[in-house]
Amino acid sequence: MGGPEVERLIGLLSRLPGLGPRSARRAALKLLQQPETRMLPLAQALVDAGRAVRICQTCGNLDAQDPCAICGDPHRDRSLICVVEGVGDLWAIERAAAHRGLYHVLGGVLSPLGGVGPEDLNIQALLARLADGAVQEVILALGATVDGAATAHFLADRLGPSGVIVSRVAQGVPIGGALEVLDDGTLSTALRARRPA
Amino acid sequence: MGGPEVERLIGLLSRLPGLGPRSARRAALKLLQQPETRMLPLAQALVDAGRAVRICQTCGNLDAQDPCAICGDPHRDRSLICVVEGVGDLWAIERAAAHRGLYHVLGGVLSPLGGVGPEDLNIQALLARLADGAVQEVILALGATVDGAATAHFLADRLGPSGVIVSRVAQGVPIGGALEVLDDGTLSTALRARRPA
Repeated sequence: MGGPEVERLIGLLSRLPGLGPRSARRAALKLLQQPETRMLPLAQALVDAGRAVRICQTCGNLDAQDPCAICGDPHRDRSLICVVEGVGDLWAIERAAAHRGLYHVLGGVLSPLGGVGPEDLNIQALLARLADGAVQEVILALGATVDGAATAHFLADRLGPSGVIVSRVAQGVPIGGALEVLDDGTLSTALRARRPA
Repeated sequence: MGGPEVERLIGLLSRLPGLGPRSARRAALKLLQQPETRMLPLAQALVDAGRAVRICQTCGNLDAQDPCAICGDPHRDRSLICVVEGVGDLWAIERAAAHRGLYHVLGGVLSPLGGVGPEDLNIQALLARLADGAVQEVILALGATVDGAATAHFLADRLGPSGVIVSRVAQGVPIGGALEVLDDGTLSTALRARRPA
């Protein structure tokens, strides 16, 4: 419906995470009904953001400046680097204000089945950041998946010789989570990793 | 995160139906990571669709042509007009291939509380389309809400003198719907409107 231009728009919108074909159609319709106040501003915002944003050459974050606002912030703790799989993880931790140090974006996790090896990840740059001895701890904040765990294990091995403390985020019951809806793996982990009350 | 251009993009994306602040952030990140293959094509598609699409002066549909593809299709049954609240309803009925006649988009439903009166809806144009006597039936396909029902009632009164048959879409148990999850109103309606098996 609406002609080829609209079908193309719906197709592109439906590839966004969170939008299926149905909601993409609704979104396109909403935009079409408000071309001046919604459609063109969104087009302009896409172009502006695409022009403004670059990859931080230090940590791999996406920002309007390079080094990014975090790497350039003199108030962050430079002795602490939090290693994440992707920029989305970094943004999530920042939103939670859960980390006062710097970051390092791996750009993925090791995946033998997916054909992702150590040379495909941003590991050399991480090792280089440890060279001057200023970093004292590297926190591995990778997903609690098989590949995430394997990657954390691999990195812990690689980082060992540098002498930094290597730590991993805790796994267990998520805050606000009811035990009865948790999967078996989380329950087992939470019980095994129990701590004094 | 990501600078002011990214925050603005996230803000505009989060106003799309179906996308909340969280998914808008994920969508923006996805776009930023693929500027050439995703971001700029979407910006271009928005501009193209905004330029191409116009409102059909006959029925109120949105299409790349005016009269729209439906009004201009010689194979559609011109004796049958389906009245809908919005373009989204029209598209939904077309997707279902549930109607072989023409359409008329009201642009809303009567809403005393919302300050929407008959003069705010596309009703005069509907009456004008009945003037030459070619239309034999008007199907009111409005939502099963209080305002939708009131609007259907109002239109049935208004269309009465023109001599056309005025019908309403059936209400009842949706296809594939389990009875136990239906609301009371739908169950009552479905029982009252029962038909011989």
